[in-house]
Amino acid sequence: MSQELAPVVQEFELFLPRPSLDDQRADEARLRQALTEKIGSRPYLPLSVLRKLTKVLREGDFRLRVLLAYDGEGWQVLDLYPAEEVRSLLGLGIDLGSTGVVFYLLDFRSGEVLRRHSFKNPQIPYGEDILTRLHYANRPERRQELHQLTIKAIGQEIKTVLAEYSEEALYYIALCGNTTMEHFFLNLETYYLYREPYIPAVSWVDTLKARTLGLPAHEEALLFVFPNAGSYFGGDLLAGILASGLHRQEEISILIDVGTNAEVVLGNKDFLLACAGAAGPALEGGILSCGMQAAPGAIERVRIDPETLEVRYQTIEGEKPQGICGSGVIDLLAQMFLAGLIDQRGKFVPSRFPERFRKIDGESAFVLAFEEETAHGEPIYVTEGEMKSVIRSKGAMYTILTVLCGSVGLTLDQISRFYIAGSFGNYIDPEMAVTIGMLPDVPRERFVPLGNAAGKGTVTFLQNKEAFQELRDILANLTYLEMNVRGEFMNLLTGALFLPHTDLNLFPSVKRKLGLE
Amino acid sequence: MSQELAPVVQEFELFLPRPSLDDQRADEARLRQALTEKIGSRPYLPLSVLRKLTKVLREGDFRLRVLLAYDGEGWQVLDLYPAEEVRSLLGLGIDLGSTGVVFYLLDFRSGEVLRRHSFKNPQIPYGEDILTRLHYANRPERRQELHQLTIKAIGQEIKTVLAEYSEEALYYIALCGNTTMEHFFLNLETYYLYREPYIPAVSWVDTLKARTLGLPAHEEALLFVFPNAGSYFGGDLLAGILASGLHRQEEISILIDVGTNAEVVLGNKDFLLACAGAAGPALEGGILSCGMQAAPGAIERVRIDPETLEVRYQTIEGEKPQGICGSGVIDLLAQMFLAGLIDQRGKFVPSRFPERFRKIDGESAFVLAFEEETAHGEPIYVTEGEMKSVIRSKGAMYTILTVLCGSVGLTLDQISRFYIAGSFGNYIDPEMAVTIGMLPDVPRERFVPLGNAAGKGTVTFLQNKEAFQELRDILANLTYLEMNVRGEFMNLLTGALFLPHTDLNLFPSVKRKLGLE
Repeated sequence: MSQELAPVVQEFELFLPRPSLDDQRADEARLRQALTEKIGSRPYLPLSVLRKLTKVLREGDFRLRVLLAYDGEGWQVLDLYPAEEVRSLLGLGIDLGSTGVVFYLLDFRSGEVLRRHSFKNPQIPYGEDILTRLHYANRPERRQELHQLTIKAIGQEIKTVLAEYSEEALYYIALCGNTTMEHFFLNLETYYLYREPYIPAVSWVDTLKARTLGLPAHEEALLFVFPNAGSYFGGDLLAGILASGLHRQEEISILIDVGTNAEVVLGNKDFLLACAGAAGPALEGGILSCGMQAAPGAIERVRIDPETLEVRYQTIEGEKPQGICGSGVIDLLAQMFLAGLIDQRGKFVPSRFPERFRKIDGESAFVLAFEEETAHGEPIYVTEGEMKSVIRSKGAMYTILTVLCGSVGLTLDQISRFYIAGSFGNYIDPEMAVTIGMLPDVPRERFVPLGNAAGKGTVTFLQNKEAFQELRDILANLTYLEMNVRGEFMNLLTGALFLPHTDLNLFPSVKRKLGLE
Repeated sequence: MSQELAPVVQEFELFLPRPSLDDQRADEARLRQALTEKIGSRPYLPLSVLRKLTKVLREGDFRLRVLLAYDGEGWQVLDLYPAEEVRSLLGLGIDLGSTGVVFYLLDFRSGEVLRRHSFKNPQIPYGEDILTRLHYANRPERRQELHQLTIKAIGQEIKTVLAEYSEEALYYIALCGNTTMEHFFLNLETYYLYREPYIPAVSWVDTLKARTLGLPAHEEALLFVFPNAGSYFGGDLLAGILASGLHRQEEISILIDVGTNAEVVLGNKDFLLACAGAAGPALEGGILSCGMQAAPGAIERVRIDPETLEVRYQTIEGEKPQGICGSGVIDLLAQMFLAGLIDQRGKFVPSRFPERFRKIDGESAFVLAFEEETAHGEPIYVTEGEMKSVIRSKGAMYTILTVLCGSVGLTLDQISRFYIAGSFGNYIDPEMAVTIGMLPDVPRERFVPLGNAAGKGTVTFLQNKEAFQELRDILANLTYLEMNVRGEFMNLLTGALFLPHTDLNLFPSVKRKLGLE
């Protein structure tokens, strides 16, 4: 990752020979020849650039700056201006999540992310989950409607994020999302996406002009939409792989992305094996009655003293608690387990701490924050049934990892790195995730938090034009392993539905913590 | 020219494997892989095509037709439809002359020109000659005005020529014109075109979408504008070279294009030497008081019996005469000369046929058609002064040919073919042109009339995608010879201002006709 990167937008300063009776080349030929020498291939010159070329050359006495963008096949000139002008050169990475959308505003000059900006996916009123939206979009005019409101919202937010810059300063947009989100974004047919045999309209979208979709940007700005590897393996995951870099390495690593699904990729520079399973919603906090996204007020850390049973927690941005997010749930489960408040089978033990346990809707619940502590005056709790869902999710995750490794004849301790991505990837405490048996009990330095890997992948793309080839290679190397059809999975899952596992020897560090060694 | 040609638009019928759980490739990947095998490179798929792909595949049970266009770098998919649909596939060649515009509507399926359509250049009210229009266009808003009226007129005429087809059937437009016309067409800066050192804004225009200019055509239709080789060597001339094919031959030939200027290209597949001179206007009939374009009613053929002095003429489409066009002027001069009505120095001999000679504005004039014969009731005549202009023009043409040959150490009789292009190129009688000493006295089968070579070049382009490379090679091989700066030219011109020449031995066949041998 430390080699010199060549971003997809580059500026060259040129001093062209002045025309004379001995050199009557057209302005275009003069420019094109100089550029071809610089970049080693013949650039495309759009009409808008040809129209301003003559003036720019003469205003700057044939000294000028030329802005080029790489489209995957070659370079296109986007703009040019006299050499003394210094313009902002911005790129925008977009992670179009089904719940939230995140922007990364990149400065191509410094290579730095200037701003991170997030907002809700405007499709949510049409369905919390993707399937509801897909059903809604069965009629073309409704799909068109979802498309337009998505474009409109993204367009408005682009204007917001560009507030102090001109729209003209935005030269490249790279967008990723799951396959459905990308289809809505481009207004592609979604009908067959979720019907057997689950065929996307498009896998690879050739780079287009941002204006084709009416997005606010420079008139020649390019738009790249990440390719998908199938209906259930979207451009967001490919962006995640790109961000992790595991596809460039000799050693074999695993990328874990816990979103609405749990998606896992195992591999290295020679092969990539992917699978997905419905491990996600509970781990995101999504299905819990007090669950919430990782946002201010979400409880993200929990500690329970195994002796005094004192409960401490930490919220995002230190605000009064409003709910609990994915990393908070994992912490809570681990802490309850270590404190003996939940047993190995996931059964609550109210007798050990009666003040914290209540019956809610006839079910046993653990109160993490009492009424008087919270922002809304309601308690924040998790029921036994909900915790069982979390345990199923963590068990599914561990089983996916085991099966995936096994399918290439490896064991989990032979994996060099575990890249942890997802909306809560930045915050997950691997120690806790190991404690509950979600992640394998390997040396902790092997866990690499990636945060929003999809979003970071869009930035990686903008920073490095080789990403085009890397994505092509990833697609070519990627095999999708259908997980749920393997009987082995169900057998293995049974063992993983315990805390941390029926086979405690798989989790020696947890065994030690429990004083069982 | 007989090798199999590959047009710039091609249709492929494909039967794609149907998707299944064992073949979950996206529709786009399925199509792209099949196309890549067919064409040997990766095609570009625009968003409009991706949006309809899914439906078309399923409507036609994965049997479909795909329309691709070559843009000079690779193939782009323009459209697709179920295999049972048969669509019209049209291309349009446009010769944007400064006086008249000619369309050639091509059927890509048969390779045939379906229709030829011509109309006046709408810029004429802004100046009969190009320089007046260039001066007018000095202010950007006025250049914009000329651009817009040109696009508007071309757009309207496209609708006319497509009357019985849909606009959607037009997939490719190839346009040529002189450098100024092309700059107006594209709205490029023209200020430096006609100021030393005479630099065009653009030489090579990368293929663009026709919709960029708002032309009526299929939404993905491509537009190619012929490259120029300088301010005074336009895309029309390159189109003419392409149509002549001289750049593909082993033997050395000459292409003569008489428009407002006389442009001449000498060469073969290895080199091309070009020059231009102000030989044109008189030969076009342009500066004559009774001159007119080659249009219905124009006298195009003249015969004068050397014995009886009976005058006969023929008009275009047999209508009552309205004026005289280029080929008529050449005929008239030759016939007057052979009949002894004009002497070797260009002096009229009224005494030989007093009924036909009059004094008009104090000058001697030969009346070719009397008042009672013409459409407008006015006589059609040529004055002695006008005929002297014609002789200067023909002398300039012959001198250009001589100098050009001499510059590569050849004589005119070593030239394999003389391709005669220009608005009157179809009609010129080489016998007469030799008689007046405009063309060299070589075996007549060496003269190859091309008609509107520029227009034909646009058709050649549409019929053959190799034209892209040929045009690049032509540009690379072309050297421009500045004619007027050579003292030799003026010396040689003096001899060519006689009929047919001071050195009658250069014109043995004329010598025989005159009974001087």
